[in-house]
Amino acid sequence: MNLFYVHPNDVHLPHLTLRGQEARHASKVLRYREGDELFATDGRGNLFRTKIVAVGREQLSLHLTESRFEDRERPLLILCLGLIKKRDRLEFAVEKAVELGVNEIVIFKGEHSQKENVRTDRLEATALAAMKQSLRYYLPEVSVLPTLAESLEKKADGSTIVVADETTENTSLSPLQDRILLIVGPEGGFSEKEREELKNRDSQHYSLGQKRFRTETAAIIMTEHFRRDP
Amino acid sequence: MNLFYVHPNDVHLPHLTLRGQEARHASKVLRYREGDELFATDGRGNLFRTKIVAVGREQLSLHLTESRFEDRERPLLILCLGLIKKRDRLEFAVEKAVELGVNEIVIFKGEHSQKENVRTDRLEATALAAMKQSLRYYLPEVSVLPTLAESLEKKADGSTIVVADETTENTSLSPLQDRILLIVGPEGGFSEKEREELKNRDSQHYSLGQKRFRTETAAIIMTEHFRRDP
Repeated sequence: MNLFYVHPNDVHLPHLTLRGQEARHASKVLRYREGDELFATDGRGNLFRTKIVAVGREQLSLHLTESRFEDRERPLLILCLGLIKKRDRLEFAVEKAVELGVNEIVIFKGEHSQKENVRTDRLEATALAAMKQSLRYYLPEVSVLPTLAESLEKKADGSTIVVADETTENTSLSPLQDRILLIVGPEGGFSEKEREELKNRDSQHYSLGQKRFRTETAAIIMTEHFRRDP
Repeated sequence: MNLFYVHPNDVHLPHLTLRGQEARHASKVLRYREGDELFATDGRGNLFRTKIVAVGREQLSLHLTESRFEDRERPLLILCLGLIKKRDRLEFAVEKAVELGVNEIVIFKGEHSQKENVRTDRLEATALAAMKQSLRYYLPEVSVLPTLAESLEKKADGSTIVVADETTENTSLSPLQDRILLIVGPEGGFSEKEREELKNRDSQHYSLGQKRFRTETAAIIMTEHFRRDP
């Protein structure tokens, strides 16, 4: 099954419009034609089963035949990820976190990060592709913030903070809220200041075992553990 | 901590020799010098703490100061992975499986695989780098076999677990042996013949939930689950 993304602004039920990259992919690559059935999501929990009414150069007109709404998985998982210098590893972390059911991704530049420009648009495209690939109906927001402090401030409400850590022993976590901020430190680790900020936010540490993991691996494992068995 | 790989043939305790790529990386990039301390593993469970006796153009002579042997983690996990067409995704699967503690990797060309030449040497280099990165002392063997049938034949002993497609419900597994073959189907899925072969092996199915995962994601999750909680 191929799943397409239709922007929420282009949903006027029973009419929907597929545009841009999505429309070109459907018509040029996959050769969808008038009368064909096409599945789309608005990235807000809706799966639309549609029939193609018209195929234009840059857009497809769709008519709804059936729709289904899916609630967000709980708890809400917000992955707060230290910047990874290598672009393919960063994109991989985003892709896998979305596949595994993360709800939002915040990337922060740590004090020990080697600063790099991050192409947020590429990361958004990665998240979109991963959502469609894994047949999910929620599009996680991806944002890049300059510091951990700012990330913590912006994601303040109701969150339990769990930090990935390979140095801690496994201990049970105290009860978690319905909104969990998973913090994976940047390459190079946290600075003293950042450790202090985490302490002030009353964070819990979660052991990934005694082996050393790359940042993107820790992000994948954290997402998987807390999605599967929070 | 940097960990280097010394070939078992180059270990004549208390003397060790670091060669080739490893030697160049140590001397040219990381600028190790005579008298410095250097940590190496033979990929067979030994961690060697050494002192550098001499730095040559293509080799470093080392003298043992301390050694430690670590048993293999149990159960033995053999990842039997269907070929992934895109090289970076295949290498990523290998890297992450090694980071997460797999013991051996067999890559097979499925009947539905789009055949590609696989550079086994690149995958071996990936496994080596991942072993060092995650401070593991066992180097997993990586091999590429032409068919699933041949992989099953070569890895005949132990329990066989097949990653289920996303349509199967989670059921509990019957008790597992100390040697587990984790089978992750190729992109494009198993053929009828391959399904039959798996049935004849008395394999069990393990569900990853109701979402659709890419092959490399399934490989990562399977390794992680069975390493952490077999």
